[in-house]
Amino acid sequence: MTSPLTIQMHEADNVAIVANDGGLPEGTVLPSGLVLRDHVPQGHKVALVDLPADTAVLRYHVPIGYALQDIPAGSWVHERLLRMPPARELEGLPMATVPAPAREPLTGYTFQGYRNADGSVGTRNILAITQTVQCVAGVVEFAVERIKRELLPKYPHVDDVVGLAHTYGCGVAIDAPDAVIPIRTVRNISLNPNFGGEVMVVSLGCEKLQPERLMPPGVIPIADRRDAGAADAQGDPLDVVCLQDTQHVGFMSMIDSVMTQAKVHLERLNSRRRETVPASELVVGVQCGGSDAFSGVTANPAVGFCADLLVRAGATVMFSENTEVRDGIAQLTARASSPEVAEAMVREMAWYDAYLQRGRVDRSANTTPGNKKGGLSNIVEKAMGSIVKSGSSAISGVLSPGDKLARHQRGLIYAATPASDFICGTLQLAAGMNLHVFTTGRGTPYGLAECPVIKVATRSDLARRWHDLMDINAGQIADGEKSIEEMGWEMFRMMLDVASGRKTWAERHQLANALVLFNPAPVT
Amino acid sequence: MTSPLTIQMHEADNVAIVANDGGLPEGTVLPSGLVLRDHVPQGHKVALVDLPADTAVLRYHVPIGYALQDIPAGSWVHERLLRMPPARELEGLPMATVPAPAREPLTGYTFQGYRNADGSVGTRNILAITQTVQCVAGVVEFAVERIKRELLPKYPHVDDVVGLAHTYGCGVAIDAPDAVIPIRTVRNISLNPNFGGEVMVVSLGCEKLQPERLMPPGVIPIADRRDAGAADAQGDPLDVVCLQDTQHVGFMSMIDSVMTQAKVHLERLNSRRRETVPASELVVGVQCGGSDAFSGVTANPAVGFCADLLVRAGATVMFSENTEVRDGIAQLTARASSPEVAEAMVREMAWYDAYLQRGRVDRSANTTPGNKKGGLSNIVEKAMGSIVKSGSSAISGVLSPGDKLARHQRGLIYAATPASDFICGTLQLAAGMNLHVFTTGRGTPYGLAECPVIKVATRSDLARRWHDLMDINAGQIADGEKSIEEMGWEMFRMMLDVASGRKTWAERHQLANALVLFNPAPVT
Ligand SMILES: [Ca+2]
Ligand SMILES: [Ca+2]
Ligand SMILES: [Ca+2]
Ligand SMILES: [Ca+2]
Ligand SMILES: [Ca+2]
Repeated sequence: MTSPLTIQMHEADNVAIVANDGGLPEGTVLPSGLVLRDHVPQGHKVALVDLPADTAVLRYHVPIGYALQDIPAGSWVHERLLRMPPARELEGLPMATVPAPAREPLTGYTFQGYRNADGSVGTRNILAITQTVQCVAGVVEFAVERIKRELLPKYPHVDDVVGLAHTYGCGVAIDAPDAVIPIRTVRNISLNPNFGGEVMVVSLGCEKLQPERLMPPGVIPIADRRDAGAADAQGDPLDVVCLQDTQHVGFMSMIDSVMTQAKVHLERLNSRRRETVPASELVVGVQCGGSDAFSGVTANPAVGFCADLLVRAGATVMFSENTEVRDGIAQLTARASSPEVAEAMVREMAWYDAYLQRGRVDRSANTTPGNKKGGLSNIVEKAMGSIVKSGSSAISGVLSPGDKLARHQRGLIYAATPASDFICGTLQLAAGMNLHVFTTGRGTPYGLAECPVIKVATRSDLARRWHDLMDINAGQIADGEKSIEEMGWEMFRMMLDVASGRKTWAERHQLANALVLFNPAPVT
Repeated sequence: MTSPLTIQMHEADNVAIVANDGGLPEGTVLPSGLVLRDHVPQGHKVALVDLPADTAVLRYHVPIGYALQDIPAGSWVHERLLRMPPARELEGLPMATVPAPAREPLTGYTFQGYRNADGSVGTRNILAITQTVQCVAGVVEFAVERIKRELLPKYPHVDDVVGLAHTYGCGVAIDAPDAVIPIRTVRNISLNPNFGGEVMVVSLGCEKLQPERLMPPGVIPIADRRDAGAADAQGDPLDVVCLQDTQHVGFMSMIDSVMTQAKVHLERLNSRRRETVPASELVVGVQCGGSDAFSGVTANPAVGFCADLLVRAGATVMFSENTEVRDGIAQLTARASSPEVAEAMVREMAWYDAYLQRGRVDRSANTTPGNKKGGLSNIVEKAMGSIVKSGSSAISGVLSPGDKLARHQRGLIYAATPASDFICGTLQLAAGMNLHVFTTGRGTPYGLAECPVIKVATRSDLARRWHDLMDINAGQIADGEKSIEEMGWEMFRMMLDVASGRKTWAERHQLANALVLFNPAPVT
């Protein structure tokens, strides 16, 4: 048997987690001499000292709960022994109090990307077909299959054709105050750098989300020459295939229209070539899902280290997941680059608190059975392990759900999103993400058709079993084979490779999940 | 030019709608001698008499609005000239006051269906793959494609293989009070009669919606021999492929597991044959979408007549769409078969009023730009045209969103759902629908993979242009070629044909929309 291995995140912590595969049996003697009083499963916590009732249980140097009873040293500290701390009030927070860490810029790192007319850079060269409404999704799916089969082979420099299907667009309260979120999300996804500025829209005709409401004049950078004054004959019309147009006679005429328009865009996309661009053109969205106690020990700290490298290289890194940062709000407002950024963080948290309250739940609704099984006692512990993905840079900006980054926005950005994997990924796509990093402890076959997803395993066991789904194994940190820094650098180099065209496992299998919109407004 | 044709729904109405293609020009003399003062577009209303300001504008013998100014006879009565009536209070309604119409039972009508072990009857013989969470959707999609290519040709009596993908299952507030709706919806869809009682589930492992929570012991009729007492070795386990199971090594092992389990069910489904069953085994969901003013004049009245035939034949007919019945609530509570049924209607309306109010909108958020363009001034007029789909039978039961019909429930049922086409269709599938009838005026390529959808055009122009998307042309009523009764009978006979295996247009093109869950609870 391998020797007992426990990981303590901070020297002041009074618990550590068990790293060994299969956990450690009762009676195990740790290197410190401590004897386990219970079997402690892998990823779960052991009390390093006696914890009298009401003691704060510290991990990441933060109280993740209070002992509900006396817990002797060597005991398994599971969620049923802990009382969860209340959520931090949103008043009186430290605002932009931590000075930005002084760090050497990282220069000379580049990747091979597709430079767009608006200056942004794609990591893939994809034809995306924007849809105003779910009504057209079946028709677009049919057309996309034919385009892939009949047209795509003739355009070898185009990576893929993707229908941006979603469930929004009609049967929704489109004038409700919160409807702005799903609408701008669909709009901004169609402007994602991986689609080369080639916007084509398929519309039904009678839907609430009319093409001109989805894509008002002026939103398509450079390519959009439509005039705000509309009737102007010089303006290019928005490229819309409207199924209800009277010119369409029979189903195949609709398919023909979509294919004819697709060809125009495929021609232009096919003429593009990758070119050398600085690493500062990366827009990386980081996320975790299917988390376990190792997420916050191996994969997420390595992502955090890599996030710092990216920021030093002048790139953009977005972290997200409202319910997983809520319990660390004081750390984050302190790290904001200005009081305005800190206030924007607070505004997003307050909005989400109110949203959850309307549905009669709170942030603790985040945790899953798998989290608990994996050793995460509650949302506070999960949050601390999630936030480390953000590294240690100053937070330089905040995006509301569905908002798009401005061209000048660089550095570490908080993109406010639910923690739901698909909703978070969808909103990061809308923000302009051209590369996605996703850490998982329990394992998920998550993928997106719109953007490459680098999947990071938190444990070697998962990386071994899911050898053709996990792109990188941060479990090597727990195994003592690599340091967090080494793993962070490995990720950074892999990001440059994948951004340059190297396929991820999900891409190789063409595994992709649905776009899932965040619609806090009612359906009708 | 064809002679001017207008349609008045009730002799007391003070407006009629123009039926002619392209509308009627200013100066047209109607057969009554009335001269049009404006061009009136097709489907739009003309004032039959002078309407002084504040006059109630009557259609279907119901005030659909009040004149905002004096409107002379012969004018085009569009939505900008009308003030919408407020919503009817939910107190003091007539409860079960209208006696059930006495009607001859219809006997001797049958179709060829698949009889299930629980007594229900499928109109198709489909293998459905239930999913606990969106995380597995990409893997299931990959597996379904392989099953269709490699296995399905060996099982000629199985119609199709369908992955029941949805966006629920994790990243949601699963213990929120309203979360019961999406959960029971996914559960009940998997029990739809078209799936033959063969339930197979693909689960990730760590998701919130665990397989045993989705499908607790006892929910699978007959086939489910699991015991509420659980640990009992005699019980058949729920058939679950769990991707995180340690037995899975590599992506292809997951695909193999899904295919291996699929074979077991395909074998059993393939041994089934259609048999003659009475028309009373039909469970028809009726819906309208992309509506225009003809919806309430041609297609919906014919559906209503057909609904009465179905009820006379002992079948089940569900109508739905909360925001489209809200303004007719007094008619509907009056038609309830008992005060309890009327109270259930009121309960659903009150719940939905509150739901919309939480999102700061009301039932008027229902109407679309296409509705208005098609001549529907507001939700009151739209509602009156929508409700006629229910025919004139007594309302014998009410289902909450996602609920499943009891085996004994027959007759006309109000299945409370949003009006959103996909959400309504999804909830009717959960209720146990084995045949769907969908009327459309503006035109939509709507389809479902789980159940045949008969699409009814409200206008001949649409039926001509969309000749391979519309299954039946109710526009013949406006053309004076068929009566509502004749069209209703034609629909009834087509339903028996389609239920017996005749393919609809959407099935021939394999056009299908997404399942869209109704989740009024927060995401996390
Ligand atoms: Ca997470
Ligand atoms: Ca997540
Ligand atoms: Ca048993
Ligand atoms: Ca409708
Ligand atoms: Ca509808």
